Amino acid sequence: MSEMREVVEKFRHIDQRYESGGGQKGIDRQHALGKLYVRERIDRLFDKGTFVEIDRFVEHRCTNFGMDKREGPGDGVITGYGKIDGRIVYVYADDFTVFGGTLGEMHSKKICKVLDLALETGNPVIGLHDSGGGRIQEGVDAKHGYGEIFFRNSIMSGVVPQISAIMGPCAGGAVYSPALTDFIIMVNKTSYMFVTGPNVCKTALNEIVTEEELGGAYTQNAISGVAHFMEENEQDCFRTIRKLLSYIPSNNRLPAPVVKTDDPPDRVAEELLDIVPVEPNRGYDMKEVINLIFDKDSFLEIQPLFAPNIIIGFARLDGQL
Amino acid sequence: MSEMREVVEKFRHIDQRYESGGGQKGIDRQHALGKLYVRERIDRLFDKGTFVEIDRFVEHRCTNFGMDKREGPGDGVITGYGKIDGRIVYVYADDFTVFGGTLGEMHSKKICKVLDLALETGNPVIGLHDSGGGRIQEGVDAKHGYGEIFFRNSIMSGVVPQISAIMGPCAGGAVYSPALTDFIIMVNKTSYMFVTGPNVCKTALNEIVTEEELGGAYTQNAISGVAHFMEENEQDCFRTIRKLLSYIPSNNRLPAPVVKTDDPPDRVAEELLDIVPVEPNRGYDMKEVINLIFDKDSFLEIQPLFAPNIIIGFARLDGQL
Amino acid sequence: MSEMREVVEKFRHIDQRYESGGGQKGIDRQHALGKLYVRERIDRLFDKGTFVEIDRFVEHRCTNFGMDKREGPGDGVITGYGKIDGRIVYVYADDFTVFGGTLGEMHSKKICKVLDLALETGNPVIGLHDSGGGRIQEGVDAKHGYGEIFFRNSIMSGVVPQISAIMGPCAGGAVYSPALTDFIIMVNKTSYMFVTGPNVCKTALNEIVTEEELGGAYTQNAISGVAHFMEENEQDCFRTIRKLLSYIPSNNRLPAPVVKTDDPPDRVAEELLDIVPVEPNRGYDMKEVINLIFDKDSFLEIQPLFAPNIIIGFARLDGQL
Amino acid sequence: MSEMREVVEKFRHIDQRYESGGGQKGIDRQHALGKLYVRERIDRLFDKGTFVEIDRFVEHRCTNFGMDKREGPGDGVITGYGKIDGRIVYVYADDFTVFGGTLGEMHSKKICKVLDLALETGNPVIGLHDSGGGRIQEGVDAKHGYGEIFFRNSIMSGVVPQISAIMGPCAGGAVYSPALTDFIIMVNKTSYMFVTGPNVCKTALNEIVTEEELGGAYTQNAISGVAHFMEENEQDCFRTIRKLLSYIPSNNRLPAPVVKTDDPPDRVAEELLDIVPVEPNRGYDMKEVINLIFDKDSFLEIQPLFAPNIIIGFARLDGQL
Amino acid sequence: MSEMREVVEKFRHIDQRYESGGGQKGIDRQHALGKLYVRERIDRLFDKGTFVEIDRFVEHRCTNFGMDKREGPGDGVITGYGKIDGRIVYVYADDFTVFGGTLGEMHSKKICKVLDLALETGNPVIGLHDSGGGRIQEGVDAKHGYGEIFFRNSIMSGVVPQISAIMGPCAGGAVYSPALTDFIIMVNKTSYMFVTGPNVCKTALNEIVTEEELGGAYTQNAISGVAHFMEENEQDCFRTIRKLLSYIPSNNRLPAPVVKTDDPPDRVAEELLDIVPVEPNRGYDMKEVINLIFDKDSFLEIQPLFAPNIIIGFARLDGQL
Amino acid sequence: MSEMREVVEKFRHIDQRYESGGGQKGIDRQHALGKLYVRERIDRLFDKGTFVEIDRFVEHRCTNFGMDKREGPGDGVITGYGKIDGRIVYVYADDFTVFGGTLGEMHSKKICKVLDLALETGNPVIGLHDSGGGRIQEGVDAKHGYGEIFFRNSIMSGVVPQISAIMGPCAGGAVYSPALTDFIIMVNKTSYMFVTGPNVCKTALNEIVTEEELGGAYTQNAISGVAHFMEENEQDCFRTIRKLLSYIPSNNRLPAPVVKTDDPPDRVAEELLDIVPVEPNRGYDMKEVINLIFDKDSFLEIQPLFAPNIIIGFARLDGQL
Repeated sequence: MSEMREVVEKFRHIDQRYESGGGQKGIDRQHALGKLYVRERIDRLFDKGTFVEIDRFVEHRCTNFGMDKREGPGDGVITGYGKIDGRIVYVYADDFTVFGGTLGEMHSKKICKVLDLALETGNPVIGLHDSGGGRIQEGVDAKHGYGEIFFRNSIMSGVVPQISAIMGPCAGGAVYSPALTDFIIMVNKTSYMFVTGPNVCKTALNEIVTEEELGGAYTQNAISGVAHFMEENEQDCFRTIRKLLSYIPSNNRLPAPVVKTDDPPDRVAEELLDIVPVEPNRGYDMKEVINLIFDKDSFLEIQPLFAPNIIIGFARLDGQL
Repeated sequence: MSEMREVVEKFRHIDQRYESGGGQKGIDRQHALGKLYVRERIDRLFDKGTFVEIDRFVEHRCTNFGMDKREGPGDGVITGYGKIDGRIVYVYADDFTVFGGTLGEMHSKKICKVLDLALETGNPVIGLHDSGGGRIQEGVDAKHGYGEIFFRNSIMSGVVPQISAIMGPCAGGAVYSPALTDFIIMVNKTSYMFVTGPNVCKTALNEIVTEEELGGAYTQNAISGVAHFMEENEQDCFRTIRKLLSYIPSNNRLPAPVVKTDDPPDRVAEELLDIVPVEPNRGYDMKEVINLIFDKDSFLEIQPLFAPNIIIGFARLDGQL
Repeated sequence: MSEMREVVEKFRHIDQRYESGGGQKGIDRQHALGKLYVRERIDRLFDKGTFVEIDRFVEHRCTNFGMDKREGPGDGVITGYGKIDGRIVYVYADDFTVFGGTLGEMHSKKICKVLDLALETGNPVIGLHDSGGGRIQEGVDAKHGYGEIFFRNSIMSGVVPQISAIMGPCAGGAVYSPALTDFIIMVNKTSYMFVTGPNVCKTALNEIVTEEELGGAYTQNAISGVAHFMEENEQDCFRTIRKLLSYIPSNNRLPAPVVKTDDPPDRVAEELLDIVPVEPNRGYDMKEVINLIFDKDSFLEIQPLFAPNIIIGFARLDGQL
Repeated sequence: MSEMREVVEKFRHIDQRYESGGGQKGIDRQHALGKLYVRERIDRLFDKGTFVEIDRFVEHRCTNFGMDKREGPGDGVITGYGKIDGRIVYVYADDFTVFGGTLGEMHSKKICKVLDLALETGNPVIGLHDSGGGRIQEGVDAKHGYGEIFFRNSIMSGVVPQISAIMGPCAGGAVYSPALTDFIIMVNKTSYMFVTGPNVCKTALNEIVTEEELGGAYTQNAISGVAHFMEENEQDCFRTIRKLLSYIPSNNRLPAPVVKTDDPPDRVAEELLDIVPVEPNRGYDMKEVINLIFDKDSFLEIQPLFAPNIIIGFARLDGQL
Repeated sequence: MSEMREVVEKFRHIDQRYESGGGQKGIDRQHALGKLYVRERIDRLFDKGTFVEIDRFVEHRCTNFGMDKREGPGDGVITGYGKIDGRIVYVYADDFTVFGGTLGEMHSKKICKVLDLALETGNPVIGLHDSGGGRIQEGVDAKHGYGEIFFRNSIMSGVVPQISAIMGPCAGGAVYSPALTDFIIMVNKTSYMFVTGPNVCKTALNEIVTEEELGGAYTQNAISGVAHFMEENEQDCFRTIRKLLSYIPSNNRLPAPVVKTDDPPDRVAEELLDIVPVEPNRGYDMKEVINLIFDKDSFLEIQPLFAPNIIIGFARLDGQL
Repeated sequence: MSEMREVVEKFRHIDQRYESGGGQKGIDRQHALGKLYVRERIDRLFDKGTFVEIDRFVEHRCTNFGMDKREGPGDGVITGYGKIDGRIVYVYADDFTVFGGTLGEMHSKKICKVLDLALETGNPVIGLHDSGGGRIQEGVDAKHGYGEIFFRNSIMSGVVPQISAIMGPCAGGAVYSPALTDFIIMVNKTSYMFVTGPNVCKTALNEIVTEEELGGAYTQNAISGVAHFMEENEQDCFRTIRKLLSYIPSNNRLPAPVVKTDDPPDRVAEELLDIVPVEPNRGYDMKEVINLIFDKDSFLEIQPLFAPNIIIGFARLDGQL
């Protein structure tokens, strides 16, 4: 074996080790909580075999509080791009097994890089959030990192779609940024969005509140209206993201995808006459009406749990949004 | 039958009645004068089955001079869009059977709506004019309505094509607006363009002039040069509009349509040597030359009756304008 | 035979005579020097049968120094456009058999016309230079003509590609203009680029220098770095121009051509491990590395003779630049 | 007296009558309620003698519900422009004495005209609201009129300042439009903002609520945060509008006014050391700090009654905003 | 005297000779016809001492028809810039004493240079025309020269003001160009605008017409409407140009000049009541009305001789256009 | 004394200590070498009392090689802005007494901040260089820092003026950046610009060269042409910077400063006739000519030591550049 082959072989071992982030124990803990490991999430999100990782070997450079002795593969976030239904989409996904997915200097730089690439190339970007927020050991650097992300979230608004999936107990900056994006999807029972958690509420306000009440999926979907979708498990969450993307153009200069439909062009929905009543003050099932008017199965309701006196969502006519 | 079905049934009866505008008597009078009824015109103008009407049920709201007691289906103008050779084209067409096709407040609002739509969507617009001009009972409102139309005619100039067909005795605003559009087509013997008619000429200027002399198709084509085409009947008029559109792009950001041609790419017209004389002061048939140079049958002469010392028109080379 | 046919017949005789520029004797002299006649060059440069000449019958209007009695078909330059690999490319090519290819008022106007057309239509332009520079008899007009060309060379920079082939002993303006273009190709032993020739060097500076040393293909490629390619004969020169164009977009708003490749998409070049050494201070063959990384045979080196401590050029990955 | 002088004289009598809007009885009722008559408001708002009225003689053209027999000078709104501290400002001011200041077709057209003028000339616009909202007799026309106003409020946002003073019991469209403007000022006890009034609340929701609770100045300033200022009387209201304008540029392309100040350029506020405590969790008077730092008396607090844990407002340094 | 002083002295003699163009005889002939010599015109047009000449020493380079033996100082046109009421204005003025003011290659290049300068610097340009049109000896070059001028007249339209004064018998290109400019001023009895003169009319059309009838100042002002002003002598012509400029901004990005006025700001013209009649069909003196409404003496009528049923012109209110 | 006053007092002691950078010993060493301490330079550069420092208390955060134990006030660079002849100018100035003025992460961030501010506010920026280049202990961070500076130097080019004064032995990045700026001024005997110093030349190339020969002020001014001015001492250096700025606009959207001149407007320089010879091949003193033509004492020669066969510089006519 030539010398260079030996060097590369060693590197491949390291590369392999990075595959399991903070280690198998952390992965097992995710599974025990009903959550997937970050790399399993990415596998399920993208079209098979299309994900390309970037900045895989980046690590933190913090020296405070003994951090110089702690290794964190990828600094707690996996970034890159892949394809969804054949279209390129960027992703950043917290790795909870590394420092609890907290955000430090390098973690934020990795996220900013994919945000910049998404903006420059005009492709959507998805954040899979499973993070305790700013990494306390990196103090001001973490705050600065969030500032850089918030700035990008803002200027990207209206240019490329930004979708946030909340997939664990997220707090602080880890929820401020999603709130600046276009859509938020939460997984019931395993994900939370806290400005700050129940403990601080108790200390500061002397108010006792459960995690579920304060920032659970139902609370954020039905009461605050911050989130747009609540899914029962991670698999459903990815299906919703993929479906949602099918309605949205990759950027503000492209048209939305057109879908083939077998809806006959001159279809007349005579059934509507039996549904909509003559009297203006009598009720009827508006979703039935929507489904009769638009292409079959093309309606995706947004915020179904919030303000139920109005129904919003995406639907297609003749395969077009 | 459910209640809603009954309501819809009643509505369909009204809808049916609107189909014949001011009524069969008016339609018969049009036919007696060698003119088509406005809905027959629209049928012939567009590709079969493509016309979509808008604002069908709009009526006037004038209360002066007993107008509050007179019904005028569609307020004397049919508006909408359809396809010509597969391309979308907007139309507004006066209905002479309703108040003589005169323009009032609502009549002008209907026209402005299709002009706005044509500009916004970048499609041509055709006006079929058969109108006595401003509706006297609506005074200032009619004048204001024409102002809104003239403004749109002006700003649309150079953006989307505007074609005016004169199909009856038009006067006042009904001819000022066409004069602001790109092409005017008149039907011989049944159409007239008057700034003001022969009667007023007699009263004001003590000059006696026939309708034909003052504003007939020949006068406006051959003498004033206001009109670009004179057709012998309405059928020819629609054929010319459709042919004319085949040369013109739908708007200023699209290329003109390209037509398949069986003209051989290397064709050499040796016959030209026998037509064009050597002496510069000897005459020859320029149209023969045009037909030999350009794609076969591709030449459409514009203003053939006006200033015959120069020939202008559209023609194609290799199927392209 | 009709009269016009006679006139055309006469004209065709003139046309035929212009085919051989300054005459057969001049063409023979070119051949004797190992150079092609300008029309032979154009034939070899473009796809067969695609060249279209413009301004073929332009002649000078100089009356000084007896020039009013000398005829120069095309004023010493052939201009027009043709296709290279199916794409349109403009050309201007000096005709050495007419006044030694020198540039006068009309010569420069012909060149400016193709430069303007190339810029307006967004196509590359190639200059085939075989010229003694400014025509002395036309003094200020020649200087003015070069100014017009230099101005166009400058504003076209970065908009459409400009390629200069030096195919004879060029001096003065005939080399200033190529120096403002993107690529210069020289033919070894038959082409020279002189700011001013050896004679003037001797007179003005009392320095004796050979043509080869002062401005030969090797000098300009290896020492001054002014030229980018040195070819052994004119045939190779045209092949290089055609290859070079295959990497370059026609203008700054179009993408570069994409080439079909049979390079497998997932090819891994394991051989690299045997080539690149582990020690940073040990040498290896960088071109071998380039050829292994990029699509097979896709590397075109630029300035291979100049500053050999760095390698530059065009190459493709997956058929794309 | 010449004939024309007679005509003008008659017109001047009409003009005079319009001065008192719906008549003296209505004016007295305003006074009895502690409110000024609309023309008194305009007098106090603008620099003396600078107000120019437009559309003074416009009247409604509604014929429904006997409206054709009712006269309403100016259709219930005074519009025009004048100067405030020498700068031109547009105004529209409801006249409660004419149809209770309700908005009909012409009323809205008058408002739209001043909004268009303000946008075109780049000057601020002030609305003095004292209106029951849409005029029921004009139904759809009133709704359409509000739509036109809302559209202008939106596109003017960020271009010219829009200030709304609520000076009576306003409901419906009369409060939707102010909510789209930049600043809302209410007069305590005499002004109200209702989406819909207490009566409808009782009927629709069976909830009993006082006017003061539902939409009084305190409610909208302290609880909903819709309004920015609460003044004790109309005189204070105008003073606040004039002061507010002194901080704001006339439009988005001009700088804000610069005010002369006698604050010494190098002033050091040593008193701050005695006010701000060393311990971060000890409180102090922030307004004292603001007043010490900024130019004397230059601080104008915005929303002093709302969310008192943060203080916002305008202030100047060296006379500049 | 040093050598250089001698050289300059000789040059100054030449410079002096150029002052009288084609020579005293030609100047005398101008005077005999009631026309000024071109340099006298320029003296009267500009503010005293502000005129700067450019291209004074340019001469033609034509060798046809014996032109190589004829000298023409300045090639028949004086060009440069000066001030009018303190504002910079460019000028080109035909010199009838040199080749009858005809336009050749160099003549047109001099005009194009001032047009380019006027456009670039944003200043008005005045043409003083006294030219027989294209110089026959320069054939195609003259035609090309006019093309360059027409192109500039067109693109300058709406950017900088162009004023043409016709001051002699002008024909051909010498009148096509003025027709493309903004204002044309003619001098009665001494100036003419002919597409082609009476002689050609006779030859080609066998029609006999006087110069005055075909293209005299009255004909072009009152009948064709081509000219805007007719003055009785050259002095009046310059006064009108200077007055006209006082209303016009120097270019499309500057405001029009504001003039001080002693018109009281609140002036009321009670006299109007005695002038304008009550009956709509009774006539009155509209110019009297104009003069009463606008600033005293500020009205400049345009085309007073053409279409007298409408009055157009410039006037000021409060010193502003 | 209140508590806060104590805190501020302590802070003022620290502030005072920072005034002398790396300490008095370092300052003395500068003086011994004939160089000023960085704060003395800033005092002399700006109008008295106008300099405002920013980021005064920034320090490095490097922990490698024992750097965590070394304090470096301001991280070796003073940044801020002040006035020169009343105009605002930004500055960054190396402090050689702190880590030899070397550039680390924070040092580069401070420089980038003033570059960003200069670009944003449209003001010139001056760099006073006295730095050994990148700080070795900060390795990649130093390289990254230079990258950020070079990027800004490039995009600021042509927007705001950038002036570099070399005031000590500068190497590496410390000279690459100046080379990207508009003007370089060196002080003779005390300043050097090295890509890399004499020692490395000896080691790598086995070539012995003095500092003066390799990168001294004379070498860079007279031989390489990299520098534009050579001054005999620092005082002259500041005078030249201030003079240079007097010719240059603050940014690309402002005009250059206009200077009052007592040069009479119609001055004629008759002396020129005695200086410029008639024979084209006889020499004369061109600077004498320049001084006679332009405003008295207004000529500032640029690169007087380089390529003396051409003279370049700034001069004024009638007080304008």
